[in-house]
Amino acid sequence: MGRFFITEGNPHLNLMEEKNNPKEDYVVTPWEASGNIDYEDLIERFGTSHIDKELLDRIEDITGELHFMLAREIFYSHRDFNWILDEYEKGNHFAMYTGRGPSGHTHVGHLMPWIFAKWLQDKFDVELYFQLTDDEKFLFNFDMDQETTHAYALENALDVIALGFDPEKTHILIDTDYISTLYPIALKVAKRLNFSNVKAVFGFDNSTNVGSIFYTTIQSAPCFLPTELKGHDVPVVIPCGIDQDPHFRLTRDVASKIGYLKPALLHNKLAPSLDGTGKMSASMPKTTIFTTDTPEDVKSKLSNAFTGGCISAKEQREKGGNPDICAIQNYRYYIFEENDEIINDIYRRCRDGDILCGECKSQLIEKVNTFLKKHKKGREKAKDLLSDFLLTD
Amino acid sequence: MGRFFITEGNPHLNLMEEKNNPKEDYVVTPWEASGNIDYEDLIERFGTSHIDKELLDRIEDITGELHFMLAREIFYSHRDFNWILDEYEKGNHFAMYTGRGPSGHTHVGHLMPWIFAKWLQDKFDVELYFQLTDDEKFLFNFDMDQETTHAYALENALDVIALGFDPEKTHILIDTDYISTLYPIALKVAKRLNFSNVKAVFGFDNSTNVGSIFYTTIQSAPCFLPTELKGHDVPVVIPCGIDQDPHFRLTRDVASKIGYLKPALLHNKLAPSLDGTGKMSASMPKTTIFTTDTPEDVKSKLSNAFTGGCISAKEQREKGGNPDICAIQNYRYYIFEENDEIINDIYRRCRDGDILCGECKSQLIEKVNTFLKKHKKGREKAKDLLSDFLLTD
Repeated sequence: MGRFFITEGNPHLNLMEEKNNPKEDYVVTPWEASGNIDYEDLIERFGTSHIDKELLDRIEDITGELHFMLAREIFYSHRDFNWILDEYEKGNHFAMYTGRGPSGHTHVGHLMPWIFAKWLQDKFDVELYFQLTDDEKFLFNFDMDQETTHAYALENALDVIALGFDPEKTHILIDTDYISTLYPIALKVAKRLNFSNVKAVFGFDNSTNVGSIFYTTIQSAPCFLPTELKGHDVPVVIPCGIDQDPHFRLTRDVASKIGYLKPALLHNKLAPSLDGTGKMSASMPKTTIFTTDTPEDVKSKLSNAFTGGCISAKEQREKGGNPDICAIQNYRYYIFEENDEIINDIYRRCRDGDILCGECKSQLIEKVNTFLKKHKKGREKAKDLLSDFLLTD
Repeated sequence: MGRFFITEGNPHLNLMEEKNNPKEDYVVTPWEASGNIDYEDLIERFGTSHIDKELLDRIEDITGELHFMLAREIFYSHRDFNWILDEYEKGNHFAMYTGRGPSGHTHVGHLMPWIFAKWLQDKFDVELYFQLTDDEKFLFNFDMDQETTHAYALENALDVIALGFDPEKTHILIDTDYISTLYPIALKVAKRLNFSNVKAVFGFDNSTNVGSIFYTTIQSAPCFLPTELKGHDVPVVIPCGIDQDPHFRLTRDVASKIGYLKPALLHNKLAPSLDGTGKMSASMPKTTIFTTDTPEDVKSKLSNAFTGGCISAKEQREKGGNPDICAIQNYRYYIFEENDEIINDIYRRCRDGDILCGECKSQLIEKVNTFLKKHKKGREKAKDLLSDFLLTD
């Protein structure tokens, strides 16, 4: 059985097929994810730890159930999450921090770690700090102006709120609107990071603009924000895509030197694109579903998605499809189907030639459109709630 | 006659004696000024222009008189000040911008460009933006914390206000308190400057911290602040020490690319220290007079100043002293004596052995203490006026 079949008894995915991919064949940085990403190799390369059976059991003991993104190893890697649980068990509530670079509308891949963060908030009763890095997107995208990235930040904030976060415990900050608070913290980080450090981690060179060189300090600042705001040490965990780990590796190196706790991390794999290659990306709108897409957009994009189907219906009925390479199955697996039995049922029927791509796509189109209909209602309501969530100086 | 004798008819100093100094024998950057600075060479090296007779005449035509710092070539170099006057004569009022890095209490050398800026404000009826770069001093001084640099910023602000600037037309900004406004402008600059640019100008290397690499963008921001605040292009001139020119060279390179006017500059020579070497510096408190010094401090420091006197009173009466190398004469010349006749009288009497160092020092001690007594009263009053001057987000 392949990667999108969920085995009973052992919920961990067999990642071996990703091992066949030569290590040079992919790139993962905070600003680029391309090629066939080898997530096992990333753990070695970044020096993170697997979320192993023992840690999953420990989480399940506290939460009473495992979120499907943990069970399916979508959240698969961590740094110091055991320490976060140690502190939690001592009665020291941690805070969460995640965020988004507002270079466009939110797509469903972005929602993945946010949905997971919502689950963590509900289960652990903790505060979430959500950063919208409009400065980053301005600095790293030559053609983007600040008005645009700020406008997208506000749009993206609606998507966060629409997921149902507790307004009492959820704080959204837009960098340029909250810079008075962030900047003094960023300066402390900046004083302890030199060009060699950021060059080694991000691959910068002499042609990198000085804003980009400085930027990681702004992404570091919210790691220490709960401690600053509460006036005492607050452990922080960051659920985020593994592509963001380089930022926080630097943050962790600096933390103790400037009198703060190191942030812990929970890393997710990146949601794949609909064409079956690389990461879902706002820069490839045809293979990415945005929360602002119309039902017709969704239908058109999913209908054109890459699948593991055969050339003809006849052939597929005889030989079966290949769900392991199918973008539709990917979407279900990563975001749109919590129920393992349904995933496995479709997987088997595809393999056996009992379900054709058209029917399979229609099922997902309906599921996605149902989700987005509700989400859009949430977005509308969020417009009135924005000020309850936004942190301002 | 030497450098501290003011010739009639031609107020320009003969700078030739500075030419004897080999060019490698001094260093001038925004963070270091040491050795025997060759100000003529700096004009060539930085690519600035002399404030020549023609420009002085033009200024005098408008202002009715020349400030002694112009006549004595203390303000000796510029960029585009003719353009500022062109605009002024068209009825386009310019704005001024200067500032200070708050690494300690203000010393009398700092007051030099401020006193000049006050004169420009009075003569041209223009607004002044005064930046206090507490972030810079934190980033560039390993042992300095943010509380300290911010506290010094407030102290330094009192010295600015004490000079009698018009509160309606003078705006003091402390970087970390005004960062919400500065940061978006700094980001525009940051996007157009790369590591090569700042490396070439400041001599940074891979071990430079990323805050220092980014910092020049924060010092650029006030160049464009009047334009942002007024909503239309405002020409800006920066009266400042020539050591600050590298920052604004970068700013000028970037300005038109981001839709702003290039700032003009008026450069002053750096006030010399009391030991006769290098620039007056807060890091050498024994050879620097601070505005917070007591009359006893002033007496002690000036009494120990380096002079051009002889070993014995007898020898000096016979051979005369050398006022050209005398720190006391320097102090008079740069700041404490506006009257050329008095300067020349002391110069001649020193040369002729008619005045000994003790008497000469006593005269300056009284002059400085009279100035500081008045200045300290101004500082006390300034505490109540601070909020009229401070820009906050």
